[in-house]
Amino acid sequence: MTPGSPSTDLLALTAALVDVPSESHAEGPLTDWIEQELRAVPGLAVDRVGDNVVARTTLGRAHRVVLAGHTDTVPANGNERARIEGDVLWGLGSSDMKSGLAVMLDLARTVRAPAVDVTYVFYAREEIAAHLSGLLELQEARPDLLAGDVAILGEPTGGEIEAGCQGTMRLEVVLHGARAHPARPWMGRNAVHRLAGVLGALDRYEERRPVVAGCEYREALQAVRVEGGVAGNVVPDEVHLLINHRFAPDRTPAEAEAHVREVLAPFIEDGDRVEVVDLAPAAYPALEHPLIASMIEREGLVVGAKLGWTDVARFSELGVPAINLGPGDATLAHAADERVSRAPLERVHRALTGLLLLGVGEPSGPS
Amino acid sequence: MTPGSPSTDLLALTAALVDVPSESHAEGPLTDWIEQELRAVPGLAVDRVGDNVVARTTLGRAHRVVLAGHTDTVPANGNERARIEGDVLWGLGSSDMKSGLAVMLDLARTVRAPAVDVTYVFYAREEIAAHLSGLLELQEARPDLLAGDVAILGEPTGGEIEAGCQGTMRLEVVLHGARAHPARPWMGRNAVHRLAGVLGALDRYEERRPVVAGCEYREALQAVRVEGGVAGNVVPDEVHLLINHRFAPDRTPAEAEAHVREVLAPFIEDGDRVEVVDLAPAAYPALEHPLIASMIEREGLVVGAKLGWTDVARFSELGVPAINLGPGDATLAHAADERVSRAPLERVHRALTGLLLLGVGEPSGPS
Repeated sequence: MTPGSPSTDLLALTAALVDVPSESHAEGPLTDWIEQELRAVPGLAVDRVGDNVVARTTLGRAHRVVLAGHTDTVPANGNERARIEGDVLWGLGSSDMKSGLAVMLDLARTVRAPAVDVTYVFYAREEIAAHLSGLLELQEARPDLLAGDVAILGEPTGGEIEAGCQGTMRLEVVLHGARAHPARPWMGRNAVHRLAGVLGALDRYEERRPVVAGCEYREALQAVRVEGGVAGNVVPDEVHLLINHRFAPDRTPAEAEAHVREVLAPFIEDGDRVEVVDLAPAAYPALEHPLIASMIEREGLVVGAKLGWTDVARFSELGVPAINLGPGDATLAHAADERVSRAPLERVHRALTGLLLLGVGEPSGPS
Repeated sequence: MTPGSPSTDLLALTAALVDVPSESHAEGPLTDWIEQELRAVPGLAVDRVGDNVVARTTLGRAHRVVLAGHTDTVPANGNERARIEGDVLWGLGSSDMKSGLAVMLDLARTVRAPAVDVTYVFYAREEIAAHLSGLLELQEARPDLLAGDVAILGEPTGGEIEAGCQGTMRLEVVLHGARAHPARPWMGRNAVHRLAGVLGALDRYEERRPVVAGCEYREALQAVRVEGGVAGNVVPDEVHLLINHRFAPDRTPAEAEAHVREVLAPFIEDGDRVEVVDLAPAAYPALEHPLIASMIEREGLVVGAKLGWTDVARFSELGVPAINLGPGDATLAHAADERVSRAPLERVHRALTGLLLLGVGEPSGPS
């Protein structure tokens, strides 16, 4: 097989993956299907841990490359069925990141004699709280399965390299008031009305755009859930707001938390609560490893910053330098009009095929 | 029995009623108990309709007085058990309006030879949406049970007459945005952030205080519930806000609705939604009936405006002039520190005993 001409219709394979629903916590059927496909490939050692499945070559090569991707999606938004129009596939998870899974699955089935050993990691529950992650489950149950020299995550990058990633934290804000009858609200204090200040600050928030190791990041601070109210006949005395903060790799989690607390401070009073409920650190851009550097040079790949948090941070913590390289479009992830195009799918497939077949080396023949 | 000296400890009877929980939709056990008590009184015709119970004298008197009260409470707030300290009873519903029920129950048991016929109406589901009201259920199933010359609601008024009542409407506001990944919020629009404007307007709202038939009303506009959010990893595209508006009897429901829409207008865009989901009109102050007028004069009762909506509006619609007169303190209704004192309990008991024993007449002996 020649790098650059996949024998598989990758758009059709992605569509097949989209058509197996796999919202977080419900990845079982999709994992079953992937596991079955991997077990059918001669020479792959396949391990299943919960709703995660790992397939490895064991060829005794000098280097091992880990290709990893999550199988779950966010909740559907009227886009649960795959639909192909020309060279574009629409549907939930098409970008984030079933197109990446399609590349991994095809490489596992077709690249039988790689120059490096390869580990394919398909894992569950990435789109929800970090402590529920299937990759964390693997890390705790079978850390040996995640070992490698470099890791490449198939998160949506439009076929470019996105190095490092921003960190993410969720903070729960609880504002208090005092219940009263809504015909006499002056006897109490409406906690929901108190949200006006916090939400105004979030709406006016001007994010930093720091440049780290040549990559420009762009931070964000967003309310993702709000809930308050006792009954239709009661002035509410409590409201809960869940805020998500994305922070660049030039800040530690503690620095990022201090920043958010500073933004909220004018609206927080004694008795209110601001608490970090979920945290995943940022990862510094990691482009130095010869396997990555040679792939970038060979394919002329564009390198940029990853704004979203990805599990490159988790691999970094494990001591495995990691990058993001996937066919999806990150700006469409989680949106109703999520889609993926054929060109970046084939570009990523070609780049990874080259990496697996050539390792740190140059193409040996005419390409 | 002499008016003014109840043979019953009304504070203890109220405590017993508080200790039978009766949150809206769960009034069954309390209704059972009240029904049993009423059926034990000779000469009362007792009817049960769902979780409502009505007891009537049938003495062929020239006038019929309706005494009515709701049996339900709002959800508990750490105050579900009755606690008596001296002449004060603390607990859920003590003010709104189990103290009123205690007066009614005691009158039903002790005033055996009234000068007027009396109808005692104990009904369910007043604290929730108007269309669920037990009084509405009675009105539809057995309107004959609600007939009378005047109606007196035992809603909390601190032992004063509160004439008429404010109207109430609930409006649901739905603001829209566009989903996105919270690491790239600029690709969408956060619907929860859009709440800042609406909640700021509610927080700054300056209410009218119109004087109607000598009674000063005070309007109100309050958020009572807020809900929004798709997942911790998604910029939300929709948020729901439930608003409660209380309006004085000088405005029709249509005028009141137009006013709320005007307040909200600067923050509402095409595709958003503002909808009245629940409505109960105001009631004009009704103090002219001789039965009411003579009771006010006899007892020297203070007359004021009712800020909260009560079922006097429903009796008005049925053609029965109605007022509020109850022992509770309306400013404590629905609050965690809800309580009632012995003095207004006994004052209301005395006034109503006088009304039942004397009708439109004067006391016949020394008092």
